[in-house]
Amino acid sequence: MQPGRARSARVDDLDEPDGGDLLVQTLDIGICGTDLEIVSGRYGWAPPGGERLVLGHESLGRVLDAPAGSDIQAGDLVVGIVRRPDPVPCPNCAVGEWDMCRNGRYTEHGIKELDGFARERYRIDPAFAVRVDASLEHFGVLLEPTSVVAKAWEQVERIGARAHWEPQRVLVTGAGPIGLLAALLAVQRGLETHVVDLATTGPKPDAVGALGAMYHTGSVADACAGADVVIECTGVGQLVFDVMASVAPGGVVCLTGVSSGGRTLSVDAGALNREMVLENEVVVGSVNANRRHYEAAAECLRRADAGWLERLITRRARLERFADALERRPDDIKTVIEFPK
Amino acid sequence: MQPGRARSARVDDLDEPDGGDLLVQTLDIGICGTDLEIVSGRYGWAPPGGERLVLGHESLGRVLDAPAGSDIQAGDLVVGIVRRPDPVPCPNCAVGEWDMCRNGRYTEHGIKELDGFARERYRIDPAFAVRVDASLEHFGVLLEPTSVVAKAWEQVERIGARAHWEPQRVLVTGAGPIGLLAALLAVQRGLETHVVDLATTGPKPDAVGALGAMYHTGSVADACAGADVVIECTGVGQLVFDVMASVAPGGVVCLTGVSSGGRTLSVDAGALNREMVLENEVVVGSVNANRRHYEAAAECLRRADAGWLERLITRRARLERFADALERRPDDIKTVIEFPK
Repeated sequence: MQPGRARSARVDDLDEPDGGDLLVQTLDIGICGTDLEIVSGRYGWAPPGGERLVLGHESLGRVLDAPAGSDIQAGDLVVGIVRRPDPVPCPNCAVGEWDMCRNGRYTEHGIKELDGFARERYRIDPAFAVRVDASLEHFGVLLEPTSVVAKAWEQVERIGARAHWEPQRVLVTGAGPIGLLAALLAVQRGLETHVVDLATTGPKPDAVGALGAMYHTGSVADACAGADVVIECTGVGQLVFDVMASVAPGGVVCLTGVSSGGRTLSVDAGALNREMVLENEVVVGSVNANRRHYEAAAECLRRADAGWLERLITRRARLERFADALERRPDDIKTVIEFPK
Repeated sequence: MQPGRARSARVDDLDEPDGGDLLVQTLDIGICGTDLEIVSGRYGWAPPGGERLVLGHESLGRVLDAPAGSDIQAGDLVVGIVRRPDPVPCPNCAVGEWDMCRNGRYTEHGIKELDGFARERYRIDPAFAVRVDASLEHFGVLLEPTSVVAKAWEQVERIGARAHWEPQRVLVTGAGPIGLLAALLAVQRGLETHVVDLATTGPKPDAVGALGAMYHTGSVADACAGADVVIECTGVGQLVFDVMASVAPGGVVCLTGVSSGGRTLSVDAGALNREMVLENEVVVGSVNANRRHYEAAAECLRRADAGWLERLITRRARLERFADALERRPDDIKTVIEFPK
């Protein structure tokens, strides 16, 4: 599609791919809010010198051809890492932490100046491909969003450890894919897990219940006051302030939702500041993921119940019906575009 | 004085002190914003069963009598630690991190349910007294506010280390005692240090210049955009949002100022949230200090230039003129009440 031009997404013939030693056949592409923003023309950048961006950053593929002596072999399932550091890296990119890029000169497959994975075959440098277990053939497309929550959890735990840290209770706001995967990682850590969302019935409350977590509608304070960790997955401005007001002393609030600007709220900044100071509270924004987080996420998915992961993929559309996948429907959790096998 | 009753502060005859194995003669008591809030009747709690609270949490004293075999001996300079854990401690208090108390059942000398140090002699458990170098006879009263910034810096550095971390530039907002001491610790770490305050002339800009840091008036963005660390020492709500908007990607904003509530601002919460997420930014509130921070602070003061520390104590008042010390004057940095030697 052409970034900046709404409704320009289409299936097109592309040249055989170049760009790396691994040749990968795409199996599944997941669709997220960023894709919908790109498709609507409000986000996204084409590769330099062109006008067209191949979509798709949440992917699962099978290796068709790998260099001899590589850790990855033909037939393996792989997921491409989304972000790439600039050839002249910032200090964080230089050590592989492109998720923490300090100068903004990264690129991202399917989002920013790099073609995405929503094509029948792509080539990639093995350093930016992550192998996933063969058991994840149907769910490996969830690796990229899981890597985002694996990073969020790593940030929370490293920040929590700034002092003695015994978290017990977690609140997740939003029961979309990011929220549900954040709740999965909370439950895998043995924590008391609460999820709040607007839906009163349907696959979201069902998925939370099946995880052994508690589902709430209504206010954050009613859902779970005094959480030690809050993973905010909606990007709704008011919710951000609500969770800051309800977190436990010493608690960590991790923001993962990317919201639009331009919505002004009235905030008692003095009261908010005073509470954050007197209760030693932290708010941390977290975006993207590096290889360490993809690998942690692959292990989380391998340990998860396959039936539960199946609940997250609420629609699958074949490539020729991609336009259906780019619509959001009320009970959608994750929509996946299936490529010809 | 009687907490809750404005203008009830007075010099009074007290019984000989009890409460601990060390007997200490008070030399100096520092006055801070919390004292002024208590004196105005808006803050503070008397010990249970009484109506009167002895003031004073920033102290320097000389040991008159110490138990045999103690690390602390008669003649040593000591500072009393302000906060005490509840006898039934929370998990953080149980490991000596009463500054991170999770249930709010701590007490504080001179502030919350424990008499303060503004008396000729007090007794204290040696576990809550910190020895300071004899060279700090004139400046040891600065240890308590320095412990607050030592904790703030520890929080910043431990949080910064959640990923690769090479901070270079620091912005301190506010050039009161906390701001200037935060700037001292920044300069001691070899960081490029900027301080912003309203004062255009006088002891605050002079003290910043003498430290080798850069002084600014005007907006935060003009003072220092792209700081890796911001230590916010004013508690002014608008400044909190300004620094969050100007910090570098991956940056850490530490809030140390306790503001009053009730002042509502209009905030573009969506834009703020989006920036925090996309740039991996952190905001952390920090209050109080534990023994580790007092000890770190003692070392920072010992290494500091005595002439520079002298600049921070802009007024000294003898005990009988305590009322003068409880007034705030335009060029005050730190006011100290001197006790009879």
